[in-house]
Amino acid sequence: MAQVVADRRDVDFVLHEQLNVAQLSRFERFEEFNKKTIDMVVSEARNLAIKELLPYLKEADEEGCAFDNGKVTVPKAFHRAYGLFCEGEWIAMCDDPRWGGQGMPATVALAANNYFNGANYPFMLHNILSHGAGKLVECFGTDKQKQLFLKKMYTGVWGGSMLLTEPEAGSDVGALTTKAVPNDDGTYSIVGNKIFISSGENDLVENIIHPVLARIEGAPAGTAGISLFLVPKFWVHDDGSQGQFNDVVCTGIEEKMGIHGSPTCSMALGGKGQCRGTLLGQANKGMSAMFVMMNEARLHVGMQGFACASTSYLNALNYARERVQGSAITAPKGSPGVPIIQHPDIRRILLTMKSYSEGMRSLLYYVGFMEDMLHVSDNETDKQRFQGIIDVLIPVAKGYITDRAFEMCSLGVQVFGGYGFTKEYPQEQLLRDCKITQIYEGTNGIQAMDLLGRKLGLNKGRAFTDLLAEVQKTIDTAKEIQALSPLAERMDAAVMRLMETAKSLGTVMGKNISAAFAQAHPFLDVTGDVLMAWMLLWRASIAVQNLAEAPKKKDVPFYEGQVKSAQFFIHSVLPVSLGKMEAIMAGDTAALDISEDAFGTK
Amino acid sequence: MAQVVADRRDVDFVLHEQLNVAQLSRFERFEEFNKKTIDMVVSEARNLAIKELLPYLKEADEEGCAFDNGKVTVPKAFHRAYGLFCEGEWIAMCDDPRWGGQGMPATVALAANNYFNGANYPFMLHNILSHGAGKLVECFGTDKQKQLFLKKMYTGVWGGSMLLTEPEAGSDVGALTTKAVPNDDGTYSIVGNKIFISSGENDLVENIIHPVLARIEGAPAGTAGISLFLVPKFWVHDDGSQGQFNDVVCTGIEEKMGIHGSPTCSMALGGKGQCRGTLLGQANKGMSAMFVMMNEARLHVGMQGFACASTSYLNALNYARERVQGSAITAPKGSPGVPIIQHPDIRRILLTMKSYSEGMRSLLYYVGFMEDMLHVSDNETDKQRFQGIIDVLIPVAKGYITDRAFEMCSLGVQVFGGYGFTKEYPQEQLLRDCKITQIYEGTNGIQAMDLLGRKLGLNKGRAFTDLLAEVQKTIDTAKEIQALSPLAERMDAAVMRLMETAKSLGTVMGKNISAAFAQAHPFLDVTGDVLMAWMLLWRASIAVQNLAEAPKKKDVPFYEGQVKSAQFFIHSVLPVSLGKMEAIMAGDTAALDISEDAFGTK
Repeated sequence: MAQVVADRRDVDFVLHEQLNVAQLSRFERFEEFNKKTIDMVVSEARNLAIKELLPYLKEADEEGCAFDNGKVTVPKAFHRAYGLFCEGEWIAMCDDPRWGGQGMPATVALAANNYFNGANYPFMLHNILSHGAGKLVECFGTDKQKQLFLKKMYTGVWGGSMLLTEPEAGSDVGALTTKAVPNDDGTYSIVGNKIFISSGENDLVENIIHPVLARIEGAPAGTAGISLFLVPKFWVHDDGSQGQFNDVVCTGIEEKMGIHGSPTCSMALGGKGQCRGTLLGQANKGMSAMFVMMNEARLHVGMQGFACASTSYLNALNYARERVQGSAITAPKGSPGVPIIQHPDIRRILLTMKSYSEGMRSLLYYVGFMEDMLHVSDNETDKQRFQGIIDVLIPVAKGYITDRAFEMCSLGVQVFGGYGFTKEYPQEQLLRDCKITQIYEGTNGIQAMDLLGRKLGLNKGRAFTDLLAEVQKTIDTAKEIQALSPLAERMDAAVMRLMETAKSLGTVMGKNISAAFAQAHPFLDVTGDVLMAWMLLWRASIAVQNLAEAPKKKDVPFYEGQVKSAQFFIHSVLPVSLGKMEAIMAGDTAALDISEDAFGTK
Repeated sequence: MAQVVADRRDVDFVLHEQLNVAQLSRFERFEEFNKKTIDMVVSEARNLAIKELLPYLKEADEEGCAFDNGKVTVPKAFHRAYGLFCEGEWIAMCDDPRWGGQGMPATVALAANNYFNGANYPFMLHNILSHGAGKLVECFGTDKQKQLFLKKMYTGVWGGSMLLTEPEAGSDVGALTTKAVPNDDGTYSIVGNKIFISSGENDLVENIIHPVLARIEGAPAGTAGISLFLVPKFWVHDDGSQGQFNDVVCTGIEEKMGIHGSPTCSMALGGKGQCRGTLLGQANKGMSAMFVMMNEARLHVGMQGFACASTSYLNALNYARERVQGSAITAPKGSPGVPIIQHPDIRRILLTMKSYSEGMRSLLYYVGFMEDMLHVSDNETDKQRFQGIIDVLIPVAKGYITDRAFEMCSLGVQVFGGYGFTKEYPQEQLLRDCKITQIYEGTNGIQAMDLLGRKLGLNKGRAFTDLLAEVQKTIDTAKEIQALSPLAERMDAAVMRLMETAKSLGTVMGKNISAAFAQAHPFLDVTGDVLMAWMLLWRASIAVQNLAEAPKKKDVPFYEGQVKSAQFFIHSVLPVSLGKMEAIMAGDTAALDISEDAFGTK
C-alpha cells in the first residue's frame, strides 16, 4: 500500500541510521527505549494517525467549530479521537511518568508527532496547547500547583491554553494591558481581554487551565512588568475538586483561512470581577518563563508546517504515479498517455518536495536529538554546546521550515492540476492549514530577527560556530566518499560563504542595526538552505556507505534516492542561495531609505 | 483617502509616462482615445470597481454558488453588479463597436481590468468567459453565427463559457472523448462530459453559448481530430428567437479553495440525445482555433493573478501605515510603539510587494500595448516583430506573474500577522483566489514548457532576441543617466547571462529534450526576473528624468519610489536569479535519473 502522511522507511532512516536514537537507551533516563520499543511507539502512533485522525481531516475542516453564547464545540469526530489519544497517553510523551508522562526521547516523540500532525494537525493543536500549558506548571509551578493541575493536564482530563496576545499586543507582547490585582488570600484578580487563543474554550474537556500573561498593578511597563498566572476556567479547590466558573468567558471565535477544527478564541477575563488566578513562577518574570517554553513551542510549529508538507508530498507522489496524462516527452506524437511522474517538470517538482521533506525531517528530529543529548549529558561544556545548537536551530526549525513547507504545499497543489484546487483532494486544505504556521508563535519575520539579533551572536558567536562545526564533520566525511566528494566540495564552499555572510552582517549590525535587520529574513533563508543541504549530504553519506554493503533489495532505491536528493539540492538550490548571500553582502538599503510616501500614493 | 486595488498614480504612470498610450490616437482605429478619454475610461472603471464590486468580495466568497437540480445560482450581489457592468458596456471593451464593443486599446482595457479584477476577480471570471466565447464566434463564426450570437454575447444579454477539459483530458486536451455526429440539417449531435467549466451554468443570463471541443465521428485521434462547436444552452432559431433546452445539463459544481463566487461546473452534453451544435470554424481545426484565443486568455489570467497581488499590496501598505506594534528598532527599549511600516523587515516585505506589483503592471500593460501596435501597424516586418514579442511574453505574463503573484499574496497575509489569517481582512481570500491562476488556462508547468519549447525558438529565435533588443534599449538609456548607470551595468550583465542560459538550454534541447524540460520552470523564473528588472529600470529612467524637471511636489516621492524599486530589485532579487541561471546551466539531471521507486516507498 502507498505510504501516506510520512514515509515510514524515511522516518526509520532518520531515527536509526542517521541519528541512531536507540543509543540513548544506554542512559538511565531512556533505558526502556531500545530500537524495538522505539519502533513500537512509532508504529502505534502511525496506526492511530492513519486510522483515527486522517479520515476526519476533511470532515473537521468542513464542520469547523461552533460558538454559541460562550460555549465552543469542536468537530464531532474529534471527541472520539481525543478519547483514543488520551487513552494512548500521547499528550505528554516526553514527560515525567510521575505526572502522567511517557518519558520518551524527544526524537521519538517528534516521529510520532510527524504522523499525528501530518494526519490531522488542527486536531493536534488542542493537545499541543494542553501540553505546553502543563509544561509551564511543571517548570514554574509550586508543589501545590503541580499537585492540583499537572497530572490532569498531562493525561488530558483537563485542557490548557496560552493567553498571551491582545488586540494591541501581538508581536509586541510587552504592550499588553491585562491587569492582576493581589487579593488577601494570595490569589490575584485578573481583568483583561485576550485574542487568538487556540483552544481557549472547547467541549473536549471538563476544565481548562489557562496560563495568562498579565501585569500586576504597579509593575513596570513593557516586558519587565509581565507576570504569569494560572487561571482555571472552573476554580479548583485545594482538595482538587472543581469549583465555580471563574469568569473566563469566550466571547467569540475567529473565522479563518484554515485549521477550522481548532477554535481560535477571544477571551474576556474578569468581566464580572470574578476572575482569579494564582501566580505561576515569580512576579514580573512572566516573559522569561514564556521564553523557556518558546523553544518547545516553536519546534512544534516547525513540525506542524513540515507535517503538512510531508503529507502533501506523499499525496502528490501517489497521484503522480497513478494519474495518466499526456504521452512521454521523448515518445513520438500520439503515443499513449503515461503517468505524469514520467514528465520532467513533474519530476522536478516531486524531487523538490522530496528533498525538502527529507531535509526538514532530519533537521527537526535532529533538534529533538540535541534536546535528548542535553538531558542525558552530565558534562557542562557539552550541555552548553547542545543548548547553543538548539537555540540557533529553533528559529530555522520554525521560520525557515514553515516558509518552505508552505511553498511545498503549494507545489503539492500544482501536481494535482485543477483537482488540487478542489476540496475533493486534501492538497488545498494542507496549503490553507499550513499558512498559519508562518505566523503564529512569533511570525517568521520575528524568527528571522531572533536568528540574526540573538542567536548569531549567542555565547559570542560560539553557538553558531558549534553548529557549523557539526556541518563540517559531515562535509569531511562526504569528502572521503568518492561519489559524494564533488557535492562535499560545493557544500564546503557554501558553508564558507555563509560564514562570511554572517560575519559581514555582524559588522553591519554594529554600525547600522536597521540595515542588518533588513537582511534578517534573507539570512534566515540562506542559513536554512545550507542546513537543508547539510542534512541531505549527511543522509547521502550514510546511503552510499550502505549501498556498498549489500543492502536489502528493497532498500536500494531508497538509498539511491538519498543520493539524488542531495545531488538535486546542492546543484539546483544551493547556487540560488549563494546568489542570495551575494545580495545580503551587497547590503542594499533601498527598503530603509525609501520614504513612507514613496511606497504608494495616499 | 488611501489607494485601494491599484494605485491610480501608478496606473497613470504606466499608461501615459511609460507607454504613452495616447499616441495610439493618431491611428484611425483608436482616434477617439486621446489622453482625456483614456483617463475617463480608467476613472469610470475604477469607480465601478471600488463602489460596486469591491464591497461584495467577501460576501460573495461566503455566500458562494449554489447547485440545485441542474440550476446554478451565483451570489446575489453579482446580479446588480452584472447589470451595471453590462450597462457600462465593459464586457467587450476592445471589440468592434458593430458587435457591441467599445473599440478601445487593449492597454486601456487592461488598466480597467486591473481595477475590476483587483476588486472582485471571481465576479469578473463570468465576463471574461463570455467575452472569450464571443471572441471565438467573432474569429471563426460564419456570418450567420455572428448575427445570431455575437452582439448578445458582447453586450452580456447572453453568457458564454469554454467546454474543453474532461476528467481524463486536462493538460492533455488531445485525449478528449466528447463526440460529434453530423445530422442531416448541418448541425451535429454532441455527446460527452466536461468538467471544470467556469460559468458553465448560472442565473445571470437568459442563455449561455458554449464553445465545445469535440471529435467528429471518425476523426483522427489526438489534437489533430478535434473540432470546435457552438452549443447553446437554449437553441437559437434562425430568427434569433430562443428555442428549446438543448440538453446541456449542469450535473454539479466544484467545492473549491477559492473563487467561490464563480461556479465551476460539470456539464453533461447529450445525455438524452438532444444536444445539438453547429461547427465553429473548420472541422478538425478546433485546437488551432483555441490557440488563437490562448494569448488573450492567458494574458487575462496573468492579470487576474496580478490584480490579487496589487490589491494585497495596497491593503498591506495601508495596514502597515496604521498598525502600531513595537518600538522602532533604533529607539531605546521601552519607547512608544510605531506603525509597523517603520520596521526593517516589514519595509523589506512591502518593497518586495511594491516592486513586483509595479513590474507586473508594466509587463502586462506592455503586452497589451504590443497588441495595440500590432493592430495599427501596416508594416509586415513590424507586425511580425510585435507578434513575436507578444508570443514570447505570454507564458511569462501568465506563468511567471501568477507564480510571483501568489507569493506576493502570501506576503500580504504576513504583514497582517494573525489578523491576515482571519476572514476579518481580505488578505487570506486574495491568497486563496489567486491560487487557481497558477493552474488554469494551462498550468504554469505548461507555460514553462511553452516558453522553452515553442517560444524560445520561435522564428529561429528571432522573437526572443527581438524582445531582448527592447530590453537593451532601456539599458542603454539608463546607462546615460548617472544615477542609474550602476543598475544598468548590472542589468546588462544579467541580460547577457540570460542569453547564455537560453543558448545553453537550446543546445541541451538538441541532445536531451528531457534534460532541457527539467529546467523549463527555472528558465521561466529567470526570464521573468530579468523582464521585471527591465520594467523597473525603464520606470526608474523616466522617474529620474522627471525628477530633474521640477516635478509637482506630490510626484516627488512617487518618482523616488520608482528608483527605489529598481534599486531593490536589481540589487536584491537579480543576484538570486543569477544563481538560478548558474544552476540551469549546470544542468543537473537528478530529477530525470532518479527511479520512480526512489521517490518514496510504495
